[in-house]
Amino acid sequence: MKAVRFFGHKDVRVVNDIEKPVPKGDEVLLRIGGAGVCHSDLHIIDEGTVVGTVFTLGHENAGWIEEIGENVEGYKKGDAVLVYGPWGCGHCKPCQQSKENYCDHQSEQAYGGGLGLDGGMADYMLVPSSRLLVPIYDLDPVIAAPLTDAALTPYSAIKRSLPKLMADEYVVVIGVGGLGHVALQILREISGAEIIACDVTEDKLAFAKELGAAYVINSKDADAAEQIQKITGIKKAKVVLDFVGATSTIDLGTKVVSLDGDLTIVGLGGGHYQYSMNGLPFGVSMTNPYWGSRTELMEVVGLARQKKIHIEIEKHKLDDANEVYDRMRQGKIKGRAVLIP
Amino acid sequence: MKAVRFFGHKDVRVVNDIEKPVPKGDEVLLRIGGAGVCHSDLHIIDEGTVVGTVFTLGHENAGWIEEIGENVEGYKKGDAVLVYGPWGCGHCKPCQQSKENYCDHQSEQAYGGGLGLDGGMADYMLVPSSRLLVPIYDLDPVIAAPLTDAALTPYSAIKRSLPKLMADEYVVVIGVGGLGHVALQILREISGAEIIACDVTEDKLAFAKELGAAYVINSKDADAAEQIQKITGIKKAKVVLDFVGATSTIDLGTKVVSLDGDLTIVGLGGGHYQYSMNGLPFGVSMTNPYWGSRTELMEVVGLARQKKIHIEIEKHKLDDANEVYDRMRQGKIKGRAVLIP
Amino acid sequence: MKAVRFFGHKDVRVVNDIEKPVPKGDEVLLRIGGAGVCHSDLHIIDEGTVVGTVFTLGHENAGWIEEIGENVEGYKKGDAVLVYGPWGCGHCKPCQQSKENYCDHQSEQAYGGGLGLDGGMADYMLVPSSRLLVPIYDLDPVIAAPLTDAALTPYSAIKRSLPKLMADEYVVVIGVGGLGHVALQILREISGAEIIACDVTEDKLAFAKELGAAYVINSKDADAAEQIQKITGIKKAKVVLDFVGATSTIDLGTKVVSLDGDLTIVGLGGGHYQYSMNGLPFGVSMTNPYWGSRTELMEVVGLARQKKIHIEIEKHKLDDANEVYDRMRQGKIKGRAVLIP
Amino acid sequence: MKAVRFFGHKDVRVVNDIEKPVPKGDEVLLRIGGAGVCHSDLHIIDEGTVVGTVFTLGHENAGWIEEIGENVEGYKKGDAVLVYGPWGCGHCKPCQQSKENYCDHQSEQAYGGGLGLDGGMADYMLVPSSRLLVPIYDLDPVIAAPLTDAALTPYSAIKRSLPKLMADEYVVVIGVGGLGHVALQILREISGAEIIACDVTEDKLAFAKELGAAYVINSKDADAAEQIQKITGIKKAKVVLDFVGATSTIDLGTKVVSLDGDLTIVGLGGGHYQYSMNGLPFGVSMTNPYWGSRTELMEVVGLARQKKIHIEIEKHKLDDANEVYDRMRQGKIKGRAVLIP
Repeated sequence: MKAVRFFGHKDVRVVNDIEKPVPKGDEVLLRIGGAGVCHSDLHIIDEGTVVGTVFTLGHENAGWIEEIGENVEGYKKGDAVLVYGPWGCGHCKPCQQSKENYCDHQSEQAYGGGLGLDGGMADYMLVPSSRLLVPIYDLDPVIAAPLTDAALTPYSAIKRSLPKLMADEYVVVIGVGGLGHVALQILREISGAEIIACDVTEDKLAFAKELGAAYVINSKDADAAEQIQKITGIKKAKVVLDFVGATSTIDLGTKVVSLDGDLTIVGLGGGHYQYSMNGLPFGVSMTNPYWGSRTELMEVVGLARQKKIHIEIEKHKLDDANEVYDRMRQGKIKGRAVLIP
Repeated sequence: MKAVRFFGHKDVRVVNDIEKPVPKGDEVLLRIGGAGVCHSDLHIIDEGTVVGTVFTLGHENAGWIEEIGENVEGYKKGDAVLVYGPWGCGHCKPCQQSKENYCDHQSEQAYGGGLGLDGGMADYMLVPSSRLLVPIYDLDPVIAAPLTDAALTPYSAIKRSLPKLMADEYVVVIGVGGLGHVALQILREISGAEIIACDVTEDKLAFAKELGAAYVINSKDADAAEQIQKITGIKKAKVVLDFVGATSTIDLGTKVVSLDGDLTIVGLGGGHYQYSMNGLPFGVSMTNPYWGSRTELMEVVGLARQKKIHIEIEKHKLDDANEVYDRMRQGKIKGRAVLIP
Repeated sequence: MKAVRFFGHKDVRVVNDIEKPVPKGDEVLLRIGGAGVCHSDLHIIDEGTVVGTVFTLGHENAGWIEEIGENVEGYKKGDAVLVYGPWGCGHCKPCQQSKENYCDHQSEQAYGGGLGLDGGMADYMLVPSSRLLVPIYDLDPVIAAPLTDAALTPYSAIKRSLPKLMADEYVVVIGVGGLGHVALQILREISGAEIIACDVTEDKLAFAKELGAAYVINSKDADAAEQIQKITGIKKAKVVLDFVGATSTIDLGTKVVSLDGDLTIVGLGGGHYQYSMNGLPFGVSMTNPYWGSRTELMEVVGLARQKKIHIEIEKHKLDDANEVYDRMRQGKIKGRAVLIP
Repeated sequence: MKAVRFFGHKDVRVVNDIEKPVPKGDEVLLRIGGAGVCHSDLHIIDEGTVVGTVFTLGHENAGWIEEIGENVEGYKKGDAVLVYGPWGCGHCKPCQQSKENYCDHQSEQAYGGGLGLDGGMADYMLVPSSRLLVPIYDLDPVIAAPLTDAALTPYSAIKRSLPKLMADEYVVVIGVGGLGHVALQILREISGAEIIACDVTEDKLAFAKELGAAYVINSKDADAAEQIQKITGIKKAKVVLDFVGATSTIDLGTKVVSLDGDLTIVGLGGGHYQYSMNGLPFGVSMTNPYWGSRTELMEVVGLARQKKIHIEIEKHKLDDANEVYDRMRQGKIKGRAVLIP
């Protein structure tokens, strides 16, 4: 079968000689409907964060069950499913609560299809356990694939702050890109908080308004923090979600977040912040969350099935993988690219 | 000044000889913008639930500050405010958390303006402490008055179940009347759960669809429970909100609520239910909540200021109070009636 | 191998002709260290709640891994483990959160070893999936077996009320038997609430005092509710845990539980309560929980390993099963009986 | 009356010419039973964090009501009470939830008796509103005074992590001084988590063991982090409470806190930490909380009344204030010093 393989630093090739896997035990073989292309693939390809192993890329995967191992229960051929991305040990307490993204053994083991093990940019994908599947029922796998990361990650970040996102509070969203534009939709649907969106281009800010932002601020403005404080008044923003994670955006967040608020840094922009007792307002919880849990992915599927969230996608062939990565390096992808076998 | 006074069983009169109160200490005098007319007034007037006292009716009150006592801080003449309805002792733990609706001393004391003490169906109303006010900023008091009960009560009922109201779950709303139609809007705005609305007339069901219900069921149908289970499948509805509270609606709720779900009975319909260990599904929390907290009312104001919820109102003069109560007895009020001095 | 088998109504026999099972796939074979004898076994044996099937009894099981199926990961021969009792589908949302006690498919399927499927009153027990195991490390399986139910059930009931069990509140525990005496220890260790224990004999009440109750009340006293209210004052008890579940104890609970409190009925005493809008204090959550989740069992193991809870046990041989059940029918078991192969 | 007054940088004098205040409106005059001496007083006295104002010191105050303003309800002469320390606006949402420590207007206003306004190191203290009192019933004000800060501050820090402090988890407490030694007792009483205590002297570590620590580690040891990880294993500590707040202790905390854990820095040790996306484990919430809420202080009083926590105190006269501050500068106070008029 065909597959997009990572062979090492800056070396991605589309090959045709991979054998179609055969599921055993609790394993499941998927016929891939779509595999999302994600910025974190570029960390692997260009920065060499994974070394010494060759594998199929693609960690945002959806498809139909093609074959099941002899111990699989509750699924049958043809079922449309998502593949939950972070694969934990399955036994520790976080895993038992479906939070494999925080598996106790994260530091010890190869970590997920497309992230060191074979992923979904291929005709077929072998999922090591049926527990890693989430049914999508009547949703189309081709368009559902990015839910597994581009929607789950902001969803999980938002959900940990949900008790603070009441309708008399403000939430600041920094970065209206791949994750941020989904965050705006999720906030609009499951929270009453008034949204202040920040980005650096006018079209992104206009887009944010369409997606439910009540206010938009250009974060390049030298007085962006003051503009936000003028909106929020003295109580400031109860929650700040930073989907950029640069030093400048973290800094902006620290200036606008409220006492006892949440400053959540999702973006992997490599920013720094000098923490001290007189820096952040008292009581602020500063967090860098990672991905989300499997039951949160079920909830994301619920939002998508009710058409409450929508991810703009570009469809491409597996053979075009390298061209798509190049367009991503140049910032030319609109929404999310999905490879379709 | 003019006031709508309760003199005893079925004896309500509009009088003109009440002296305008003068606030002292932490008291505040409001010029009333609007006073909502509520079904529970009829419990007082027609059923004699309050005896031995004469007072001004009206427990859904909004207006502008006319005068403040010498110890009031943080408010000034002209501020637009709501009057929080359930007045507690102010010192016990629930009161300190703004939940005066569950004040430890509830059983001991006269309970709130319009409910035994002088309420807001008058030109002016004396509020015994500034702590009982909630600012509404740019909202019009005339239309904001019903927020204090018709919105706060369903809001508080919903908020206690918020962690269960995720987008992959179903919520059943029974009764699309004064409180239920606001509940639908609140659910639409702050929860991703899919809404199944029940009522007994086609126009109410059509109205429910407009307000965000995904499904509507006529609860008079003998197989209403089966219809709901067909929608929810085996997992049933995680939350049921019953705004009727009749024996038949409680019964319907028990049949459709899920294991570990919430069955919340808000309506004062006088229904009964025979609880036993084999009755409700295991883990169901059965609750009859009362009104809401003051910080929840702040959140309701946030929803209204963002135009996320809307209460249909009829405006009437104080002089027409008895006619309005008659129309309410006959079920002829559309949405909520508000008396305006 | 030897096993204590249920053959039908009042027909329990110890047999020797059962074949030792062989684990496949994700199955695990345990050498049983101890199998707890539980009151709910008598519901099966004497009341015929399970029909049309023959199986090995015992749903409180602990032992050492003897053999594992070819797909089991994370466990090895010799590991000491508990068997989590309620076996769900493994895939639905509650199961994914380890709450198989509230599995969406509970009504559809045979339900747990010793409860319709083969349990642990035998030399060996086949556990259908490694996900149903909880490691106990250095604890002795012989004494740990009752943790799976006699400790997990009260633990889960307490944990759902934990945010209300603060040190300025009262909790009433009704029934100081098999579950209740563990509840007292758990409350003492993980909650600051002041404990009022109720039972009907002086030795039980004295025992309650030893286990941490600040006050004890004989619930046979006609004025038991008044005695409790005298302790709590007007705010009453924020949480009531009823481990009896008779009509009289539920009634006592409704009289002493506070506004916005929790009335949790764990005991399967067959009691009834007539629910109405003027019955319970407003805001009370009335619940009948069932067993607990797997991560809660991990927490129970944590308590036991730290020697914070202790279950009194009697040790017996498999051959004596019928004698032990007889002693249980006569109320002669001290603490918990455990059968040891 | 006599009072310990702050006149400016390093200028504290005991004076006798202050007029006894007279309460009006909702004000309350206390006869002081005890006023705790706190390290943060030294920030004011020695570091000049408060300027341009002369006031009576003492922000840990307890006493008996001497006189009440004409609008005070619910209190009477002779009642024993604590004075809640952080005084907010009383009207904003945090204040309405009794969390005046996070008042929206904290940056705008003079902040609390003994912290810029007249405090309790005097014969009498005027409390500006009865809402700032917490009854202590039968507790002795002399020994209860330090509860308002030395117990409330760690209590509030612990309570925000309570859902993570289960019996199968580890909590690391860094610093067994004035706040830390109370934290250990609170953890012992309201949490099942296994405690690892860190300090730099053997007597402090021995003291920690007496107070409930299961393990003690000398945090001066170069391999302190490794010693802790050896105890916790790969899952690390779910919660770290740092009562020192130096760069070295924050650093230790970041090394031992678990994925999705809480790192809470209470100590005002002036430490720094360079935050980056690859620094802390994913999902860690890093927080610097401030003091606690008034309902949390009620809960602390509950612990003290049940004798579940105990603060070691030294009693001194008002006249000895400067000597006591000197002993504090030299680290010679055992437990907590209390000035008694």
